[in-house]
Amino acid sequence: MSFTNNNSSPWIQPEASQSHTGLVVFNSLTKSKIPFIPREGNCVSWYGCGPTVYDSSHVGHARNYVTFDIIRRIMEDYLNYDVNMVMNITDIDDKIILRSREEYLFRQFRSQATALSEQVVSDVNTAFFSFAKKFEGARASGQPISTDADWNALLAELGDGSDPALAVKNPKFLMHYEAARATFGAIAAARKHLAEGKSSQNEAELLIDASKDVLSPWLDSKYGAGVTDPQISRDLAAYWEKDYFEDMDALNVRRPNVLTRVSEFVPEIVSFVERIISKGYAYESEGSVFFDVDAFDGHNGNFYAKIEPFSKKNTGLLADGEGSLGLELSGKRGLSDFALWKKSKDGEPKWPSPWGEGRPGWHIECSVMASEILGSHIDIHTGGIDLAFPHHDNEIAQSEACLGCPQWVNYFLHTGHYHVKGAKMSKSLKNFTTIKEALKNNSWRQLRILFLLCKWDAPSDYDKNVMIEPVSIDRTVDNFFANTSALLREFRLREQGSDGKRHFLEPELELQEALKDTKTQVHNALLDSFDTPKAMRALQGIVARTNTYLQRGRANIDPQIVEMVALYVTKIFRVFGLVTDSFNSRIGWGSSASESGAQGPADHESVLLPVATVLSDFRDSVREIALSGGDKGALLSLCDRIRDLDLPDLGIVIDDHGDGRALVKFADPEVIRRERAARQAEEDAKLAKKEAATRAAEEKRQKRLAEGKLAPADMFRTPEMCELYSDWRDNGIPSKDKAGEELPKSKVKKLEKAYSAQEKLHNEYLKSIGQ
Amino acid sequence: MSFTNNNSSPWIQPEASQSHTGLVVFNSLTKSKIPFIPREGNCVSWYGCGPTVYDSSHVGHARNYVTFDIIRRIMEDYLNYDVNMVMNITDIDDKIILRSREEYLFRQFRSQATALSEQVVSDVNTAFFSFAKKFEGARASGQPISTDADWNALLAELGDGSDPALAVKNPKFLMHYEAARATFGAIAAARKHLAEGKSSQNEAELLIDASKDVLSPWLDSKYGAGVTDPQISRDLAAYWEKDYFEDMDALNVRRPNVLTRVSEFVPEIVSFVERIISKGYAYESEGSVFFDVDAFDGHNGNFYAKIEPFSKKNTGLLADGEGSLGLELSGKRGLSDFALWKKSKDGEPKWPSPWGEGRPGWHIECSVMASEILGSHIDIHTGGIDLAFPHHDNEIAQSEACLGCPQWVNYFLHTGHYHVKGAKMSKSLKNFTTIKEALKNNSWRQLRILFLLCKWDAPSDYDKNVMIEPVSIDRTVDNFFANTSALLREFRLREQGSDGKRHFLEPELELQEALKDTKTQVHNALLDSFDTPKAMRALQGIVARTNTYLQRGRANIDPQIVEMVALYVTKIFRVFGLVTDSFNSRIGWGSSASESGAQGPADHESVLLPVATVLSDFRDSVREIALSGGDKGALLSLCDRIRDLDLPDLGIVIDDHGDGRALVKFADPEVIRRERAARQAEEDAKLAKKEAATRAAEEKRQKRLAEGKLAPADMFRTPEMCELYSDWRDNGIPSKDKAGEELPKSKVKKLEKAYSAQEKLHNEYLKSIGQ
Repeated sequence: MSFTNNNSSPWIQPEASQSHTGLVVFNSLTKSKIPFIPREGNCVSWYGCGPTVYDSSHVGHARNYVTFDIIRRIMEDYLNYDVNMVMNITDIDDKIILRSREEYLFRQFRSQATALSEQVVSDVNTAFFSFAKKFEGARASGQPISTDADWNALLAELGDGSDPALAVKNPKFLMHYEAARATFGAIAAARKHLAEGKSSQNEAELLIDASKDVLSPWLDSKYGAGVTDPQISRDLAAYWEKDYFEDMDALNVRRPNVLTRVSEFVPEIVSFVERIISKGYAYESEGSVFFDVDAFDGHNGNFYAKIEPFSKKNTGLLADGEGSLGLELSGKRGLSDFALWKKSKDGEPKWPSPWGEGRPGWHIECSVMASEILGSHIDIHTGGIDLAFPHHDNEIAQSEACLGCPQWVNYFLHTGHYHVKGAKMSKSLKNFTTIKEALKNNSWRQLRILFLLCKWDAPSDYDKNVMIEPVSIDRTVDNFFANTSALLREFRLREQGSDGKRHFLEPELELQEALKDTKTQVHNALLDSFDTPKAMRALQGIVARTNTYLQRGRANIDPQIVEMVALYVTKIFRVFGLVTDSFNSRIGWGSSASESGAQGPADHESVLLPVATVLSDFRDSVREIALSGGDKGALLSLCDRIRDLDLPDLGIVIDDHGDGRALVKFADPEVIRRERAARQAEEDAKLAKKEAATRAAEEKRQKRLAEGKLAPADMFRTPEMCELYSDWRDNGIPSKDKAGEELPKSKVKKLEKAYSAQEKLHNEYLKSIGQ
Repeated sequence: MSFTNNNSSPWIQPEASQSHTGLVVFNSLTKSKIPFIPREGNCVSWYGCGPTVYDSSHVGHARNYVTFDIIRRIMEDYLNYDVNMVMNITDIDDKIILRSREEYLFRQFRSQATALSEQVVSDVNTAFFSFAKKFEGARASGQPISTDADWNALLAELGDGSDPALAVKNPKFLMHYEAARATFGAIAAARKHLAEGKSSQNEAELLIDASKDVLSPWLDSKYGAGVTDPQISRDLAAYWEKDYFEDMDALNVRRPNVLTRVSEFVPEIVSFVERIISKGYAYESEGSVFFDVDAFDGHNGNFYAKIEPFSKKNTGLLADGEGSLGLELSGKRGLSDFALWKKSKDGEPKWPSPWGEGRPGWHIECSVMASEILGSHIDIHTGGIDLAFPHHDNEIAQSEACLGCPQWVNYFLHTGHYHVKGAKMSKSLKNFTTIKEALKNNSWRQLRILFLLCKWDAPSDYDKNVMIEPVSIDRTVDNFFANTSALLREFRLREQGSDGKRHFLEPELELQEALKDTKTQVHNALLDSFDTPKAMRALQGIVARTNTYLQRGRANIDPQIVEMVALYVTKIFRVFGLVTDSFNSRIGWGSSASESGAQGPADHESVLLPVATVLSDFRDSVREIALSGGDKGALLSLCDRIRDLDLPDLGIVIDDHGDGRALVKFADPEVIRRERAARQAEEDAKLAKKEAATRAAEEKRQKRLAEGKLAPADMFRTPEMCELYSDWRDNGIPSKDKAGEELPKSKVKKLEKAYSAQEKLHNEYLKSIGQ
């Protein structure tokens, strides 16, 4: 089955597998709602465009990532798809290179300006007039701005720059204008200081700090090419990556299953580009490689710009897609061609390639990382709508060109634009609120409720007033949870078996029916392209209805129906990521406390106390040993006891590792005790065996000693022996038998041998009694 | 679409709703696997036969309830159906009535026998010969047993009663035979005691306790009709209901959404029976009401015995279905007819009805309670296979007769027989193990794994050996969870952004592929009529494979793929009810302690971990110091750091005490930090003040020294002074004023004083410059 979107690139419906949840999603590739069918059974591969890490994230980013987190949770936790989500971190990018160079050069300039000098003022002034070129188009006369008078004329003309026409013409106008005004003012102040003889470092910094936005690009244009240490841009990326994940964690956004970073995939990118060239869809030119849109589009069943064919010739978007450093590249043949590999100029990080040193283009990274991890097809690809063209369309073209597949991505999902009073939230317009700022005024849960109340693919607005409804819902549900939990706990304590009364009567059956309706509404809403606003309304409805039921008073309530509602609301809110004990983010059997729910969460103190006590006792002993001189053996045996006895009893296992850094693990104390007992029993058995052997040896020795009591000289003179012999030599060995005959030599030899043996035993005996 | 099972009652397939998970289940109504389609969207109504509460539950019961709990969890937590499960407690039943009466009468008899008397022995003897009637059929001669000689002859004939033929003829034979032998012996002993004049209460109790099984039915037959207090049977039921739920909680069996008790539904049962009568499918007779099987079966499209049509004429099963008190009822017309309402004799609890005082039949309760709560159709009905006929077939007939629906239940699921060495586990055969006993040898998790390893609808065996595999799986997975958790925690602590290396290489991609295969296998197994044994094998496979991967060592592991596997295994084990932190049993937002997101609730591990880590780090350092010789100063500063920095940040305060034993306290880390900051600020302020004072003193000194530069001899010779004076003494003190007049004595004294002061300053100065 194939759909045709309004621009004639067909969309091929995946074959229905045995199971089908009934989910339909709005697919950017068809511009319509389409049944969702994963390629392989229940497994869903998902590639999501992650952040370019060079600055802090704002609420617009939060909306994007939280919204996709909600969709992912619905798919994983509600529809139970086995989702494998890969997200990239763009840590090689023109914005990162520029920002890191500028910051580096600015810091350097500032630290070198130990005093306010004519040279410093002159540098800032030069930077100012370089920057002021941006405004030439804004003057009615169109005249250049090369003197203070020119600038003052411009100021007189534009005032505070608030004319909306200026912003329409150039969205960044106001930001630049304000930066320039600040710098102009600071230069005037600095000249006055110099005239007054005030030239300390303090005065220099006042000028430099006020001129940062003007000074940085000028410094970069002058010295940027000399910034060659790749660590400079890597450090910036690492800093903002950490910052990004801090924000995501704070918003309870589930981490991707696999995180990929462009810097880790450069060799794979090179070979991917080589494959595109070999297929004839890309060309090398002046050290860069470009995708050949004309060669690709319309040939061999290929389509370029499947998502936004109407943007194909939008030069503004095309230019944005190439990046500010990319625009400087030469060698491109077609208007729509885009860089796969950028030749690196001085001051730009670089990697080796068959085309000389360079770095990956922006779009290619996603194609490569997605294919490396997820294979040659992807079920879902996501991103903000502003990435649709050219970024995602270029990704699709590259991948289909390289992999030779007609439909690389089956479902392309885009979150809607995020606005502030009708304008896109962005740095340029200074209308952004960082996530950290937003979280000062509202909880992460309230923000998430806000995003749940808006369709994921619809545009959405952010200002103070939009938080009124989320805050109120948060409050209402909070009360609902507190009330129902307390009530149910009370009922559970009183649980007594039957009182002979029937409990499920008309009000309970009605509420049960309402709950069933709610479940159906929520289910259908979520299947209908994740319609969370509709689901939220249904949930608000059942909460309100249950609150009404609760007003019947304790005596007239059946706890079972209340529990059913509260558990269901919790379940769906957990799916939405509003509940923190997410079952998909924990490994192991769970706490050993039973599910029955009677117990609350273990309080910190009672859990902590035993370990804290072990720790404190250990420390006491260490101090004692230290105060008395520090005995090495005592310290080590202390360490062993803690590991072998004290901690295992608390369910803590410490594995000593060769590198001196032990690994801490948790285990069931009962199991540890049982295993220890088994080991002990084994050792006991070994010991017992050893003791028995010792005992046997001792008994043998005692027997020998008893035998040795008799002196060898007397051994043949015992009454029994006197029956056998009649004469003896001096040493007591018999010489004649009873009959008076000489003993034969062989017999004497035997007796002498016995004599020697007894002599040895007797000597042992004498020694044992100390003689 | 309609299926016909092998006995010609058709099964109508529910209409496919929009969504369909792909689940097929083995349906007892078709004896085949059939696509599962709920009647209303995603909502599943489920009625499960609960226990008759008159005794403790054994492992056979555990198998039944745990198995259906697993199926329910798969439907709720994995396939995400909105299940509404109703379960009944049968608290009105012939077994309960009999057992409670017997126990009541036995207790009474025992407490009244304050001494061993001829009367007591005679009563037991009478009970014995009443009981011995059971064995008449066992004698070859078939002669009655009315004297001791008769009994001794039987003993001689049967020996220890172990001939299997006896058990085949009567499964309860051995239990009864042993009870009789014990009683016979106890009577002989009692007679001897009496002859020896030993007649205390102790001797009486020896006789009575040994004869309990023989005495109780005799007492009931003699006095049962006089036991009219309904509380007696209700107390027994309440006791065992509580005991049942204790067992279920211990086995982590999810409670039903709605629990119904027969005693709460008697009026509804009466009106349900009236409706069946009005439709012509039941008749009143001698105060009881019976279902008219012949009127129903084969008329108006009705079928009787849809599940086991082949058992229709099985008189043994039919008799069992009527209960031991029910068999005494008269008025039944057809062989297969069964009681809907039983006339109560004296000693049986009773409720009013149009047919006189009586009580509900066994089967009718389920039809009524299911319909009252779930309406006139049920998606799933469950129970043990031994309930299939006549109980479930009767339920179906009653409900379809009353509600006029052609298919009351769409899916009937039966767990397989539970055996011990090939024989059904039951009280009668004394081969049962109670749940509480089983839980002494194995954990609830190991038992659950045992049941997971067997198909739910297959027969299954229980003995000691079957636990070997579950215990081994439990151990293996336990280690797997402990190792992966510890490793991941460690990686998380070291999280540093990119190191520039690619992390997902061949071994990771292979493991990722294996995980995907496992997911598909598990998914397909669960959809294939809940094939948990197959799913368990797949999970064991991926655990083994991951353990192999882990052997690569810390340095060669990507935590992401390990986390993916461990989370997936946890997820499915959670679905199976093996993990205790089940998300469907908790209400609310989750723990507020870790609201910040990614982390789960304050479970033991997350509370313990920080302290355990401090302890382990401390221990690492102590070992290091010990191994390198034991430096006293290093040890003490380590102890101080733990107390002053590491622990306070975790909310733990250690107070060192003079006796060397520190006191452990808890406090809010935020408060501690604030206090520490305040203390620091105070110290800083003190230091600043001291420094200021030192500076001031130094300035003062410098000033003095500057003043002291001038020698006293020169101090009155400065140009200014020369304006005032005209003559000086040798030491430089002026003697005459400007006008040449001698200075007055008082003036000279002042000047001398100033001279001395300057002399002092000057000496200080000279000293400061080293003279």
